[in-house]
Amino acid sequence: MTQEEVKKIIRDVPDFPKKGILFKDLTTAFINPECMRWFEAELTNAYKNKGVTKVLGLESRGFIMAPILANDLNAGFVPVRKRGRLPADVIGQSYEKEYGTDAIEIHKDSLKEDDVVIIHDDLLATGGTMAAAISLVRKFGVKKIYVNFLVELEDLKGRSKFDDDVEVLSLIQY
Amino acid sequence: MTQEEVKKIIRDVPDFPKKGILFKDLTTAFINPECMRWFEAELTNAYKNKGVTKVLGLESRGFIMAPILANDLNAGFVPVRKRGRLPADVIGQSYEKEYGTDAIEIHKDSLKEDDVVIIHDDLLATGGTMAAAISLVRKFGVKKIYVNFLVELEDLKGRSKFDDDVEVLSLIQY
Repeated sequence: MTQEEVKKIIRDVPDFPKKGILFKDLTTAFINPECMRWFEAELTNAYKNKGVTKVLGLESRGFIMAPILANDLNAGFVPVRKRGRLPADVIGQSYEKEYGTDAIEIHKDSLKEDDVVIIHDDLLATGGTMAAAISLVRKFGVKKIYVNFLVELEDLKGRSKFDDDVEVLSLIQY
Repeated sequence: MTQEEVKKIIRDVPDFPKKGILFKDLTTAFINPECMRWFEAELTNAYKNKGVTKVLGLESRGFIMAPILANDLNAGFVPVRKRGRLPADVIGQSYEKEYGTDAIEIHKDSLKEDDVVIIHDDLLATGGTMAAAISLVRKFGVKKIYVNFLVELEDLKGRSKFDDDVEVLSLIQY
């Protein structure tokens, strides 16, 4: 399978979540075992010698590939969730959305100073949530932060919101 | 790793999501690669000769293990999401919650009559959401439905809500 073949499988949905937006629907790739294996191989190969200790997934579509990557790298999976959904003590980070503010949280005991961290989400658009996740992970003083996405919408320049020392990878670009 | 060892790793959080409830927090197992491998091996072994074609995960904690199981069985992963979150044409099912009703949805083109389906969630409590998911999957006329959970709270008798022809598996019981 190639990047071009996967691109043909990802579905365009017009006017979602609102009028004028052409949504890239990855469910047509997740239902295809060959696509899933391609995502897995591309991600795992990119990080196999980096000493990664934790893979974070952003709720909720980031939960789909992050645990697979964590398993392959023999790292721990850590969920990054919206405010109020994690049961134990958390550290949080708020961020601006189109209408008002939102917040994401990580369990306080889930990251340590010597961790090498990947933060994963399925799609990079404006990058607001991922920028907040990077700020949140920095509060733990970890050694290194990698960030990756299955799909990047390059016109929206989301990766310009991330600090220069964060290494960014996307598998498919539009 | 054994069931008893995994039980020691799962964290009890008192008074979450509300006073009087002792919450079983699986994040302490998801961050442990050995636990993840145990979940994966137990689930994969249970279904390896069943001809499973689709593995459904319930949003959002069901998204964590369902794609791993789907990959191992060479099946497709299908997300079951809350109302309004899937972008293309959906089929839905509403269900009663403690306060008011809620609804879950599946993309209309994600299941076919000859599918053999696993529906996965992390924890079985009262079983309301899973019973709705079973009703929803039945609308597609699939050949067979299996249901599984990492943890089952037996006192709540959630599995009594499921039809007799649905095969139910849980890895850890309390």
